[in-house]
Amino acid sequence: MRFAETDAQGIAHHASFVVWLEVARVAYLAAFAGGYRAIRERGIEALTTAVRIEYLRAAYFDDVLSVGVRCGEIRGARFGYVYAIEREGQTLATAATSHATVDRETMTPTRVPAWFREDVVRAEATPPLLP
Amino acid sequence: MRFAETDAQGIAHHASFVVWLEVARVAYLAAFAGGYRAIRERGIEALTTAVRIEYLRAAYFDDVLSVGVRCGEIRGARFGYVYAIEREGQTLATAATSHATVDRETMTPTRVPAWFREDVVRAEATPPLLP
Amino acid sequence: MRFAETDAQGIAHHASFVVWLEVARVAYLAAFAGGYRAIRERGIEALTTAVRIEYLRAAYFDDVLSVGVRCGEIRGARFGYVYAIEREGQTLATAATSHATVDRETMTPTRVPAWFREDVVRAEATPPLLP
Amino acid sequence: MRFAETDAQGIAHHASFVVWLEVARVAYLAAFAGGYRAIRERGIEALTTAVRIEYLRAAYFDDVLSVGVRCGEIRGARFGYVYAIEREGQTLATAATSHATVDRETMTPTRVPAWFREDVVRAEATPPLLP
Repeated sequence: MRFAETDAQGIAHHASFVVWLEVARVAYLAAFAGGYRAIRERGIEALTTAVRIEYLRAAYFDDVLSVGVRCGEIRGARFGYVYAIEREGQTLATAATSHATVDRETMTPTRVPAWFREDVVRAEATPPLLP
Repeated sequence: MRFAETDAQGIAHHASFVVWLEVARVAYLAAFAGGYRAIRERGIEALTTAVRIEYLRAAYFDDVLSVGVRCGEIRGARFGYVYAIEREGQTLATAATSHATVDRETMTPTRVPAWFREDVVRAEATPPLLP
Repeated sequence: MRFAETDAQGIAHHASFVVWLEVARVAYLAAFAGGYRAIRERGIEALTTAVRIEYLRAAYFDDVLSVGVRCGEIRGARFGYVYAIEREGQTLATAATSHATVDRETMTPTRVPAWFREDVVRAEATPPLLP
Repeated sequence: MRFAETDAQGIAHHASFVVWLEVARVAYLAAFAGGYRAIRERGIEALTTAVRIEYLRAAYFDDVLSVGVRCGEIRGARFGYVYAIEREGQTLATAATSHATVDRETMTPTRVPAWFREDVVRAEATPPLLP
């Protein structure tokens, strides 16, 4: 939680949470699917098509936050993640994002590749990222 | 649409939309409720409790965007807005945000004040902000 | 001045000023050199090579700020701007940025094009942007 | 280096560097002066009065960056830091920031406290943060 992410209410600005979700997705992809760069090099780009966040408690500067992330579903060219943002075991926010895979050249929708599904299935077999 | 709001996909980063919703809310309050500062001076602070955005089309650097905003509902200490982000009549995204009014001193929930309701009712009687 | 640009000190975060300088440069280019997009379409990209800001007074949420911008010098592949950020005639900050023009394809330094110089010279003949 | 920090040139936006400097200062204070919160609790607030950055090389998404930070000088109510932002031993940018200590209640300048000086002197006796 960076000082630049606070606002004049003395708490983390609510748009900062959207960035943290992305940081968590990137870490997830790095851990389970060879990383974001590898995905792009395989010709796939992922667009964000929806974001939903429920804010339950404020985050403060210098808080150490954990973001649990799990790939929620994969269908055709679409997939989604669900998240829990926590501080010392307390849930600050829950969230979900939806994404579409597109071909990097044509930017047209393309099915989520098989290797991505397999990596995600493998990921789901591991213990959850948050206790 | 600022250059700093773009990302390496060459489009507006999806978190930028959350900031634009806030800019629209602030403009709405300035037009219909005496402005954000007046509200704070009357002892009320509004927290954001939920954000939902559906992204339909990408926004590009230098796009001139309009954000239509309407106060959706007011109930107890909670109220909400709905939005449409448009570029030349095309909807780029639709969104909704939820908020809770709290007492500035105690930060505990407090009913949405009557004057805020009246200002909003008056606002809704005006023509919509977007055609 | 957006609420998202404030920080927990209750003032505009100092990194926000860097974004405002860019907004002013883009407006300058739109007014005097056909706009940023036109420049890119002519095959030129400009990189930022240095930023210097002196902060004199804090900016607060909902402040209406003016940014005066002037093209400082052009030499080879390098050019610079100087700025004054003001609120109601009071200078909040002064700044300078340095830039290098590169060929968009090769990303190697290329002389600032003659048409850019001419547009800038024409701009300097107009009244200053701030009184 | 977060994806949200990139821009449409495909590199880290130059304003992101300003935020990284702050992240480094906060880590420095946590390591050597009991942390930013402790400083605030002792009644001191630090304002940023100047930022200077020289950009030498671009940063890209997913880069792992190191920021070396050193307290440059302390004089009266003013102190400064110097920085080197590196990626795998290559310097991407050098920077300097200036700050003023103010009393949290009155927001008037106040001498940099003795305990802060001592902590900084102790810090400087440790090996440099970057090789």
